[in-house]
Amino acid sequence: MKRTTYAGLVDEKYVGQKVTLAGWVQKRRNFGELVFIDLRDREGIVQLTFSADQAEALEVAQKVRNEYVIAVEGEVVARDAAQKNDKIKSGAIEVKVESAKILADSKTPVFDIEDGVNAGEELKLQYRYLDLRRPEMQHNLRVRSKIMSSAYRFMEEHDFINIETPYLAKSTPEGARDYLVPSRIYPGSFYALPQSPQLFKQLLMGAGFDRYFQIARCFRDEDLRGDRQPEFTQLDLETSFLNASEIQGLVGHWVQQIMKDVVNYDLKLEDIERLTWQESMDRFGTDKPDLRIPFEIKDLSDVVKDSDFGVFANAVKDGGVVKALAVPGAADHYSRKDIDKLGQYIERFGAKGLAWLKVTDDGLTGPIAKFFDDDAAKALVAAADAKAGDLMLFGAGRADIVAASLDALRRLTAKELNLIDTATPWRFAWIVDWPLFEYSEDFDRWIAAHHPFTMPNEEDLHYLDEGEDPHKAHAQSYDLVLNGYELGSGSIRIHRMDIQEKMLRALDFTHEQAEEAFGFLLEAMEYGFPPMGGIALGLDRLAMLLAGQDNIREVIAFPKNSKATEPMTEAPTPVDAKQLAELGLEADEETSEDK
Amino acid sequence: MKRTTYAGLVDEKYVGQKVTLAGWVQKRRNFGELVFIDLRDREGIVQLTFSADQAEALEVAQKVRNEYVIAVEGEVVARDAAQKNDKIKSGAIEVKVESAKILADSKTPVFDIEDGVNAGEELKLQYRYLDLRRPEMQHNLRVRSKIMSSAYRFMEEHDFINIETPYLAKSTPEGARDYLVPSRIYPGSFYALPQSPQLFKQLLMGAGFDRYFQIARCFRDEDLRGDRQPEFTQLDLETSFLNASEIQGLVGHWVQQIMKDVVNYDLKLEDIERLTWQESMDRFGTDKPDLRIPFEIKDLSDVVKDSDFGVFANAVKDGGVVKALAVPGAADHYSRKDIDKLGQYIERFGAKGLAWLKVTDDGLTGPIAKFFDDDAAKALVAAADAKAGDLMLFGAGRADIVAASLDALRRLTAKELNLIDTATPWRFAWIVDWPLFEYSEDFDRWIAAHHPFTMPNEEDLHYLDEGEDPHKAHAQSYDLVLNGYELGSGSIRIHRMDIQEKMLRALDFTHEQAEEAFGFLLEAMEYGFPPMGGIALGLDRLAMLLAGQDNIREVIAFPKNSKATEPMTEAPTPVDAKQLAELGLEADEETSEDK
Repeated sequence: MKRTTYAGLVDEKYVGQKVTLAGWVQKRRNFGELVFIDLRDREGIVQLTFSADQAEALEVAQKVRNEYVIAVEGEVVARDAAQKNDKIKSGAIEVKVESAKILADSKTPVFDIEDGVNAGEELKLQYRYLDLRRPEMQHNLRVRSKIMSSAYRFMEEHDFINIETPYLAKSTPEGARDYLVPSRIYPGSFYALPQSPQLFKQLLMGAGFDRYFQIARCFRDEDLRGDRQPEFTQLDLETSFLNASEIQGLVGHWVQQIMKDVVNYDLKLEDIERLTWQESMDRFGTDKPDLRIPFEIKDLSDVVKDSDFGVFANAVKDGGVVKALAVPGAADHYSRKDIDKLGQYIERFGAKGLAWLKVTDDGLTGPIAKFFDDDAAKALVAAADAKAGDLMLFGAGRADIVAASLDALRRLTAKELNLIDTATPWRFAWIVDWPLFEYSEDFDRWIAAHHPFTMPNEEDLHYLDEGEDPHKAHAQSYDLVLNGYELGSGSIRIHRMDIQEKMLRALDFTHEQAEEAFGFLLEAMEYGFPPMGGIALGLDRLAMLLAGQDNIREVIAFPKNSKATEPMTEAPTPVDAKQLAELGLEADEETSEDK
Repeated sequence: MKRTTYAGLVDEKYVGQKVTLAGWVQKRRNFGELVFIDLRDREGIVQLTFSADQAEALEVAQKVRNEYVIAVEGEVVARDAAQKNDKIKSGAIEVKVESAKILADSKTPVFDIEDGVNAGEELKLQYRYLDLRRPEMQHNLRVRSKIMSSAYRFMEEHDFINIETPYLAKSTPEGARDYLVPSRIYPGSFYALPQSPQLFKQLLMGAGFDRYFQIARCFRDEDLRGDRQPEFTQLDLETSFLNASEIQGLVGHWVQQIMKDVVNYDLKLEDIERLTWQESMDRFGTDKPDLRIPFEIKDLSDVVKDSDFGVFANAVKDGGVVKALAVPGAADHYSRKDIDKLGQYIERFGAKGLAWLKVTDDGLTGPIAKFFDDDAAKALVAAADAKAGDLMLFGAGRADIVAASLDALRRLTAKELNLIDTATPWRFAWIVDWPLFEYSEDFDRWIAAHHPFTMPNEEDLHYLDEGEDPHKAHAQSYDLVLNGYELGSGSIRIHRMDIQEKMLRALDFTHEQAEEAFGFLLEAMEYGFPPMGGIALGLDRLAMLLAGQDNIREVIAFPKNSKATEPMTEAPTPVDAKQLAELGLEADEETSEDK
C-alpha cells in the first residue's frame, strides 16, 4: 500500500476519491459492527470508519489499540452535517476503509499522546519519542526547522558562504567552562568542544571569505538554568569591511525575512528600536528590555535626596540611587501580603526590603506615606510619572541591585496583571554602545562584557594604553533583543594585533598566557586581517519565542534535563576501563560511583 | 569608504564609473611615479593604477607590500588593447585610483598566495588562513557551500523537517571507536560524540516526523587515512512508510538537483546504474566500482581449472578463484619491471605475486605463456575479453584477495594509462542487495555489514531464527557510488523489536548487553514504530569529487592532519590539572608527556 497523502491533509476536495493513508491510531471507538478510528500523522487527524461490509478491514480495526501503526485504503466521503468537526482540517469528511493493515503494534503508551497531558517532565523526556508525537511538539520542531530554512535561504541569497568549523577544537581559558575530549593519540591532551565558532570565523575573514554563515552547535559546561542547555545552536555570521550599522541593517533584513516566513509577521525595520546600553539600563534596569511593557523605571534620586524618609535620603547620600516603577492600576490588585511577596522575590538580587506607595485621588497611602508631605508627594508622583490607582515600587541603594530588582518587578507585575501590550506583538531592539568590560562577581575581576575580541570605540582606544583606565572604554558591540530576551550578540572585532594585545593585557593576561591561549590568532593578525564584524543569534531562544514556548527544551528534539543528562539514553554513562586506558585516563575511585 | 562591488567583478560594464574596492595586495609593481597593484578579493583580481597626479594615493601605494589590506576609490578605465589580460574577468579594465587607505599591514607571508604554491602540507595547515586565500581553496569551500545550499533547498521543497540531534550522546559498543566527553556533574561518566545520528533519526521516525533531514557532524576516533577525518559531515535523511526503491528514487532526484546546481551537470536518473553487491564484486572486485573504467574483471576459474599452469589449476582446486583483467592496449606500456611493481603493489592485499600475459597478434607472450597451448590461449583470451595489445593481469587464490587485488590494479592501470572514459564524467550507481553481515578480520568475528539496525530482506528473515545461519541473510541496504567512491549508505531499518533482538543476538550480544547498549531503542520499538528507511551522503567526499580534488582536506576549512592534530591551534593540548580534577580524572603520568 503506497500512501497517497497525509491523513491530516484529507479534506472536502478528496470526497469521492480513493486514498491510502498511514499513521498512528489516536483513538478507537468500537461499536462491534462499526468501528471509528482517529488516524494521526504529522499533518493532523482524519476519521476512519470500518463497517461489516468490509469484514477483513473490520477485523483489523477490532485488533488495533492506541498508537498502533496502520495503513488503510478507502474512499473519502462527506460527513453528515451533524457529525462535522470544525476543529480539524478533515472535520467535514471521513474515510470509509476498504482494506487495512497493521504495520506495528504498540503497548499502552505511558502517557496519552495529546497536548496538555499530565505527565512529569522527566517521564516525558524518558519517552521523548512519545512526547514528540504531540501536535504541539510537532509544531515546535517545525517552527525551528522553518527558521533554519529561512535563515539559510536569506544567507544564500546574500552571497554568504556556508562554512563548517571544527567541533574538535582547542581549549581556551576565557569564557565559560569547556567540554573536553580526551585524545587517544596524545594521552593527557584534550580537544575542547567550542563555545562558539568565534575564533574560526575571524580566521575565515582573515582568509578572505568576506561573508561567512553557519548554523553552529556550541557547547558550554555551565551550571544549567531553565533556558540553558549543555549544547545549543547559533545562527552565526561574519562579514568583512562592513561597519556596525551596516551589519545591523543586514541583520534587520534577515530577521524581517525570518519573521515573515515563520510567523507571517511584517516587521518594519524602523520598528526595531535602538537604545544605548546606558539608556536601556536607566529606563528598564536591564540590557534586554521587554518593550511591550508600557511602564518604565524612573530615577527619583534628585527628588528624594533630602527626603524625610531616611532610607531614601541615605541611599543617595551613600552614593546609591532611588528609583521607582509606577505599575499602572496596580494599587487595587496588590494587598500588603502580596507586596511582601514581591519584596521577598527581589531578595535574590540583594535587595533588603521593598518600599512602596499607592497613589489615590487623595494622595499617597502606605506605610511610608507619612514621610511625604503634600509637596513631596506631588514631586514624587510627578517624577515617577504615576497617576491615581498606580502602585509605586521603589528601589534604593546600590545601582546594580536597584536595577535588577526593578527589572524583575517590572516583568513580574506586568505578567501578573496582564499589562503586556501585545498590540505590537514582537518588539525588537538593538542595544548598542556597551561597556567594553564588566566586573564579574563570580570571577572577582574585570572580564570582557562580550568577548576579548570586541573592538573598542575608536575614540576609546586610548583607554587601553598603559596608565589609563581601560574600564572606561565602550565597545562597538550590539545585542539584538526581542520581547525581553537577548536574541543575539554581535560586534566589530579587533583586527589588529597591537590592539588585541592591549585588550588581553587589560584582561590581566601575561604575554605568555596570551601567546599560549591566542598566539595563533595574534600571529594571524600580522598577515593582513580585514576589518570585520558579525553576530550570532540564538536559534533555541528564537524558536522558543516564535513557537510561543517559555522553555527552550520545548524546541529541542532531545534536550538534556536540568542535570545535563538525557533520560531516554541515560547519557552520560560509565564506560569500559579499557576505553579509559586507551585514553591514558583514570577515573578517581571516590567519585566514579556517584551517579 | 564603503565598498561598492567586489574587485573580481569589475569589468567593462564599469568603465567610466567610480568604484570603491577593498581587498588584499596580490602583487605590486613600483615604477616610482607609477605603481600597479593587483588587488585580490574572494571574487578575483583587478589591476589598480596609482600615478603622480594623485600624490596621496601614490604615497600609500608605495608603502604597501603583498597581503596588505587596502581600500581604494577610483575610476574604471579601459586598458589599451595591448595590455588586456584575457585570463581574468577584469582583464580589459583597470582602476585609476584617486584615494587609498591601508586597513591592515602584513608581514611577508610564509608562502606565496597562489595556486600550486610549493609549501609543505604541515606549513599550509599551520597558516591555514593564508592557504585558504588561494583561489583554488576559495573555490573548494564554495563548492561545498553550494552543495549544502542545494541539498537544503531540495529537502525543504520536499517537506523534510530539519531536526538537530544531540552531539553529547551515549556511547554505544557497535561500530568504530567513540570520542568521549567526560561529565563534570557525574565524574566517571561520559558522553560520546555520535558516529552518526542513526539512532536519533530512527527515534524521530518513531515520533512521527515522517521526513527528517540534517547536515550532521559525525565523529569517529579511528586511525586516520588519506580520506578520513576525526570529524566529518553527512547529509542525513530518514523517511517513514517508503520502501527501498522509493527512497532511492527520491535520493536520485536529490542528487540530480545537486549536480545541476553545483557543477551544472544534467544527470539523467536512468543513468544511475543499479548493481547487486554480488554483481559489483564479480565485475569490479569492489562494492564501490568506478564505472568510468571501461574494462572489467573476468572469472576464468572454469577455463583454467585443468590448466597446465599449476598455480591456476591449484587455486581452483583449493576452493579459490582465478580471475583476470585485460587492460586495453597496455601491453606496450608495461615492462617486466613495471609489472613487478604492480605485483609488489598488491602484496598489501595478501596477493603472493602477479601472473600476467601480453596478447599479441601472434598469441600470448610472457613468462607463463608456455603453459598455454593454442587452444588454451584462445580460450583464455576469449574468456578475458582480451584483444591484441592488451595486458592480462591475473589473480589466483582466495576470492577476497583476488577481488581486492584486481580492483586495485584496475584503478591503478586505468589511471596510469589514462584509460578513464570521461565521456560521461559522473558515473553513479546504486549497489543493492548487500549481505547483512560481513566477517571482520579486525574484530575476528561477524559484524553488521552496514549497522545493526539494517532490515534483512523479508524472505531472509528466517535466517535470524535459532538454528539457522544468519550469515546467509541479505539486507535491504543500498549504497550510492560515484566514480569509484562510496557517496552514501542507506537502508530500510528494523522497526520491530522482535527482529531487532534477533539481529543483536546474531551479532553475539547477550540479552543484558543488548539492553544496556540499545535498551531505549528496543523499548521505543514497542510503542508503534513505523516502517522506515533513509540514507546518509558523505558531504566531504561529495565536495571533494565535485571540486575535482583527491583529498577531503582540500574541502574542509580547518582539517586535522594525519595525526589528528590541528597545526594552527595545536589542538589537542594539555589542560590544567584543575580542569581534570573537576572531571574526577587523572592522566596517567607515563603517558601525559608524550606529545
